[in-house]
Parts: sequence; structure tokens; C-alpha cells
Amino acid sequence: MHKKGIIAVISGFSGAGKGTIVNRLVQDYGYAISISATTRQPREGEIDGKHYFFKSKENFENMIKENELIEYAKYCDNYYGTPKDYVFEQINNGIDVLLEIEMQGALQVKKDFPDVSLIFITPPSARELRKRLEGRGTETAEVIEKRLARAVEECVYMPEYDYIMVNDDLDICVKEIHQLLQSLHFSVKNQVDLIEEITADFNK
Amino acid sequence: MHKKGIIAVISGFSGAGKGTIVNRLVQDYGYAISISATTRQPREGEIDGKHYFFKSKENFENMIKENELIEYAKYCDNYYGTPKDYVFEQINNGIDVLLEIEMQGALQVKKDFPDVSLIFITPPSARELRKRLEGRGTETAEVIEKRLARAVEECVYMPEYDYIMVNDDLDICVKEIHQLLQSLHFSVKNQVDLIEEITADFNK
Repeated sequence: MHKKGIIAVISGFSGAGKGTIVNRLVQDYGYAISISATTRQPREGEIDGKHYFFKSKENFENMIKENELIEYAKYCDNYYGTPKDYVFEQINNGIDVLLEIEMQGALQVKKDFPDVSLIFITPPSARELRKRLEGRGTETAEVIEKRLARAVEECVYMPEYDYIMVNDDLDICVKEIHQLLQSLHFSVKNQVDLIEEITADFNK
Repeated sequence: MHKKGIIAVISGFSGAGKGTIVNRLVQDYGYAISISATTRQPREGEIDGKHYFFKSKENFENMIKENELIEYAKYCDNYYGTPKDYVFEQINNGIDVLLEIEMQGALQVKKDFPDVSLIFITPPSARELRKRLEGRGTETAEVIEKRLARAVEECVYMPEYDYIMVNDDLDICVKEIHQLLQSLHFSVKNQVDLIEEITADFNK
């Protein structure tokens, strides 16, 4: 029997370690990560079809019109979105796909695709989040305060997610998310084909 | 933070290997298995509080009246049921509890306790189920046909479960169920305390 891949959204507070976790899941376990489409100009070194699908404004607006995006948003006059094609191609090939998107986008995805699982990553404490943001050494005190203030606001989204993971020890967190994603394959919504097959077999 | 245990119901076709799987989960990973109350007479070697809680008919009917059972049913003039006390004591002590109950009981549990996860165990095929039932060597051909006929009817319950597990290789199936049960701890319904704690911490 051909096993379809699953789609999971990964979100969390800025500084919770989402990017590192997603990269580890891709490298260590072969998950695919969805590639966003955008109308912004490519930066140096960015490759079309790898980092982003670069689109003209007309192209992008046509994708919106034709319902070709899982979700999209506009920031600073540029569109960003998740094309359906790439994601559905992966899952049809049996590959699980991770979508790293922010919270309002995640809830939009859940509304349109209720079978998608939403995973929220949090640091163990506010103190630890501050420590990590300060430890990066790349952000000004002002930016750090802004991110912490946003985290305070973003707490309200946590109960809307399906799973809450604490990123305390990175290795443990990556392994726990991998085991969770594997377990999701047994979820009844992902076993529809198996149920049909077993039912047909027993009724032969 | 004190972590509460979870409750999972294990059901499946007769001959799917439920009993063996549950015993392995208890022995290898320390899960608790709920102890049923019954009004039937103890058989030789059966210990009260270990194999069953043996109750008089009056006692049992009083438990029903006082809403002290998670589910109950009457077979051959005897009551069988799952007392709440024991199960809730275990999960309050952080121990995950398995309930091995038949399908109509399982759906009753889900209705009254929507946070409980229902796990359905199926053999890989009807042919394999027949082979296992015949392999036991303890059942007459008539009983085997009866059980297979019941499995045909029971297929309709599969879509009502939360997770469908195929018991092809016992070791793999036990490990997969263990990983599933561990992953369920991250489910938002089991992370209510964590969400409150994190939210309070960020809002300090």
C-alpha cells in the first residue's frame, strides 16, 4: 500500500529555535520543508526553487486568484505564500512536509486544511527566551524587547495549536517532534486508505 | 511541574493481539492497566484488586447510581465495568493508564471523556487473523468462524477510533504504540497546565 506523507506546521516564539529544529528534522530524518513563493527581489546567493519561488506581482496575484496557495500574507508591500503544488507533490510521494509559518498563517492553514497538524515550539521559560535572544549577539536591546513583547501577545495562540513542544534540550526536542510526526501517521485521518483496505479484505 | 498521566483505550478484532500488546506495554514501559469491577464469581487463582474488583450486585448497582464507573456493561447476567477511582488515582500520580475494552464500551468512554485516546489494533489482513486464530489451537472451527464474522461487523467501528495500528510484527507494534502514547503527552489537551505556566511566566 502506498503511504501518503503528512503536513505539519511548525510555529513558535521568535528565539524558540524553530529554524534550527526544522533544519535538523530535514537533515537527520529526511523531512521536506515547503518552499515559499514571494514577490520580493532575490538577495545575493538566493536560488529560485530552493530558497524561494520568485514571482512577479502579477504571477502571485494570479496564484491567489486561482487558489494555488495554502496560505499567503503581505508584508512591506511584498507577498509571501505557500504554493500547494510543491507540498502536495511531496506528500503524494510519501514524504512528510514541514511548513514553518507564523501563527496567524498557521491558524488560516488549519481552517482550510483541518487535517494538517499544528506544532507550537516554546522555550522552557521567558528568562530562557531572553537569554537566547541576547546570546545571539546580533540584535539590539530594543529588538529583543520588541520580540519579548510580541511573545507575550502570542501566548494566546498556544491553545489553538494541536501540540505544544518545549525546546529545552535541542536533541531531545528534535527527537520528540520526529516521534510525534511518525505517530501522526497512525491517526485515523491518515489511515483512511488502510481502513478501506482492511474493511474490503474482511468483506471478501 | 507535575505531569499527569493520560488514558488510552485499546480495542481491536479478537485475535489481533491486544492482550499480548497490553501486557508488553505494562512490562516493558510501566503503563498501568485498569482493573475491572465485576459481579461474577472469582475463578480459581483470581485475586480481588489484581484481576478484578469483585463486587456484589448491590455494590455494583450502587456504583452505577453514584456515577463511579467510566463505562459498564452486562453480559450473561453479570456486570462488568471500569471504576473511575483506580484510573484517576493512576493518572494523578503521573502514570499512563490503558483500558482494554470492547468497541461499544470504547465509544461510550469517548463520549463521556473526549480527552481519552482510542487506539484500534488490526492484523495486517483477514487471512492473517484466521491464521492466528487457527494457530492458537484452542478454538473450534465454529468459534473461529464466529470471530471472523464478528470482525467483519466490527470494521464499521474503525473510523470512530483516533489511531489505527497494524499488528504485523509484535515488537514493532508495541514500540509504535509506546511512541504514540508518549507523543500524546504533547497534545494541547494534555498541555493545559504548561500553557498556563508559560503564559503566566511571559506576563510576569
